[in-house]
Amino acid sequence: MRAIEINTRDGMARSGRLVTGHGAVETPVFMPVGTQGIVKAMTHRELKEIGVQMILANAYHLYLRPGDEMIRRMGGIHAFSGWSEAMLTDSGGYQIFSLGVLREIKEDGVLFQSHIDGSRHFLTPEKMVKVQENIGADVAMCLDECAPYPSSYEYTENSVDLTTRWARRCKEAKSQGPQMLFGIIQGGFFEDLRLRSAEELLAMDFDGYAVGGLSVGEPKTLMWDMVDAIIDLLPHEKPRYMMGVGMPEDLIEGVKRGIDMFDCIIPTRLARNGSLFTWDGRMNLKNARFTEDQGPIDATCSCYTCRTYSRAYLRHLLVSHELTSFYLNTIHNVFFYTEFMKRMREAIGQGAFDVFCKAFKTRYEGGEHDDNVERSVCNGH
Amino acid sequence: MRAIEINTRDGMARSGRLVTGHGAVETPVFMPVGTQGIVKAMTHRELKEIGVQMILANAYHLYLRPGDEMIRRMGGIHAFSGWSEAMLTDSGGYQIFSLGVLREIKEDGVLFQSHIDGSRHFLTPEKMVKVQENIGADVAMCLDECAPYPSSYEYTENSVDLTTRWARRCKEAKSQGPQMLFGIIQGGFFEDLRLRSAEELLAMDFDGYAVGGLSVGEPKTLMWDMVDAIIDLLPHEKPRYMMGVGMPEDLIEGVKRGIDMFDCIIPTRLARNGSLFTWDGRMNLKNARFTEDQGPIDATCSCYTCRTYSRAYLRHLLVSHELTSFYLNTIHNVFFYTEFMKRMREAIGQGAFDVFCKAFKTRYEGGEHDDNVERSVCNGH
Repeated sequence: MRAIEINTRDGMARSGRLVTGHGAVETPVFMPVGTQGIVKAMTHRELKEIGVQMILANAYHLYLRPGDEMIRRMGGIHAFSGWSEAMLTDSGGYQIFSLGVLREIKEDGVLFQSHIDGSRHFLTPEKMVKVQENIGADVAMCLDECAPYPSSYEYTENSVDLTTRWARRCKEAKSQGPQMLFGIIQGGFFEDLRLRSAEELLAMDFDGYAVGGLSVGEPKTLMWDMVDAIIDLLPHEKPRYMMGVGMPEDLIEGVKRGIDMFDCIIPTRLARNGSLFTWDGRMNLKNARFTEDQGPIDATCSCYTCRTYSRAYLRHLLVSHELTSFYLNTIHNVFFYTEFMKRMREAIGQGAFDVFCKAFKTRYEGGEHDDNVERSVCNGH
Repeated sequence: MRAIEINTRDGMARSGRLVTGHGAVETPVFMPVGTQGIVKAMTHRELKEIGVQMILANAYHLYLRPGDEMIRRMGGIHAFSGWSEAMLTDSGGYQIFSLGVLREIKEDGVLFQSHIDGSRHFLTPEKMVKVQENIGADVAMCLDECAPYPSSYEYTENSVDLTTRWARRCKEAKSQGPQMLFGIIQGGFFEDLRLRSAEELLAMDFDGYAVGGLSVGEPKTLMWDMVDAIIDLLPHEKPRYMMGVGMPEDLIEGVKRGIDMFDCIIPTRLARNGSLFTWDGRMNLKNARFTEDQGPIDATCSCYTCRTYSRAYLRHLLVSHELTSFYLNTIHNVFFYTEFMKRMREAIGQGAFDVFCKAFKTRYEGGEHDDNVERSVCNGH
């Protein structure tokens, strides 16, 4: 059985189905981030109603609390959390490396202090595979080193080589079983290192390939150069996942290049800040001109929030710091992203992806955009 | 048309229907607190699914933000918030008097500083009626003074007399229209002052009568003495509302005495703290012994939370400070209160209220109770 079945191509863009132990996921797919097995401010039934097919949880967080062994005893993350659709765990390498002074990279693994209680931990590639097998998501990720931006050629080269050695150890540590293990292509912003990373990982025959270490503060042209450098190497029969990306315009660019999977905290984090996506651009709900605006966030949107609440009331809840505000805004943004991916899949199916992209860009990028968004919110896996 | 239609009596307990501009509300009823027109961490469809018939919003908060005039321009609180069922606004006198040094009581009204921006405001009884008419809930409350506990006889007497004069001014200021206006019986913990307050307000012929100033730190026996002192005076054909009460055992005692309406922040605030009501007592979800407990909060409960999530996972969300935790716990506690009132109404209908009370007390009070509850959470309206 192939992990991904590609049904349609339109240029390099492709649509198909990622086959998992929890159902087939239509691709290209965007995975909202649910660090603890649930998307912040969402319940599982809301996610299902919205049409979310797959979420991303974080093995580093779950390892620290409640513990991967405990999740295994509870029957795995699906039984524990109640989420019955597909799930991927990121290893959490990015989160560990973001700890800064609290972590130390060694050949054998990474030593770090818990952000929760300061306890010391040492995670090796083998241990990270075991942790993710205990958690039991449908897809696990190798432990990698995500080099900061900017990094020197020498630093990045050493980092890529370490990531390759770790990937080999992950692959060897993997048990038999339905869980897929993806390799993560690193290489910073050096094309030859990206190529080296891709070639070495491809030789190991992972179930899928991720592009990591992008959207970490670099100019966007540089980000796409790195994807362009390796995309033709990737086998057609395996899923391709661009980690920690991104804004709608990034998803279009990724899909155009043949990427199948994305994740990012953008739709959920921006929702909690009152920055809402519409087909006519992105609005900052805090803006005073929405104070008495009785229209919905987006008149063309059919999410619960848009069907029920006015901009005026949603703005009131936001500025009053009501918990319900996080909830209603998150519903809208996750719905937007889900609908956006669905329309891209449909456009690919109709051989009209270019037409879709042009129409979207004219309307969305021609619309207004709040200044509420730091590029940094997109960073990382 | 009478505001309340009493269908059944069982001892002093009574069940019926409160007729409002937004439907008939089956009584006795518990109103969850929705300060801004929405219950914290809830959406309106969740409240409707749970079976919530009526919520309580706060005129003081809405006056300060977004402003009652603005709500009037939006078509009133129902149109503004999207809540289509019954709603009552408390005047917010309790919140104003709780401001302490930030407020000054004068004969004409109360001078206070906004807790939001420090701006100074002067609210008179007439203004408070106008504010609530602008907000446009189904029931409005008179501006009253809620004396702190303990207060001297002299202080309380002056306070009662002021509350009576303010009530008269509220009544005179009221416009024609479907909005009901309730008087609030004060009198601290002096039976003669409670009687005086009740008699003076009854002479003014309000649409309903509330008992205020209870559950402010006094012993419970004292609280019930005050209700017992005046309950026989209250006309049978008008709704009776006990403000800021309370725990399930308090609701039983209130219903037993013929009270029709209650509100309290207890179920929602305790939910956010992880203190959850069950038919076998109240549990503190933080307790370590629930860490791997795969059962629901309450095996006999049919709320979404109990149908879907285990204690172990709910505890994990709580200790991880996930927003979804507030949401799922609130669903459960509001469901419990709603179901509890429904069962009391059914018991009254069957002439079996005493049987219900005994069975409930044996099971609930015989169960365990977390120590997570400060008596103070029950304070006030």
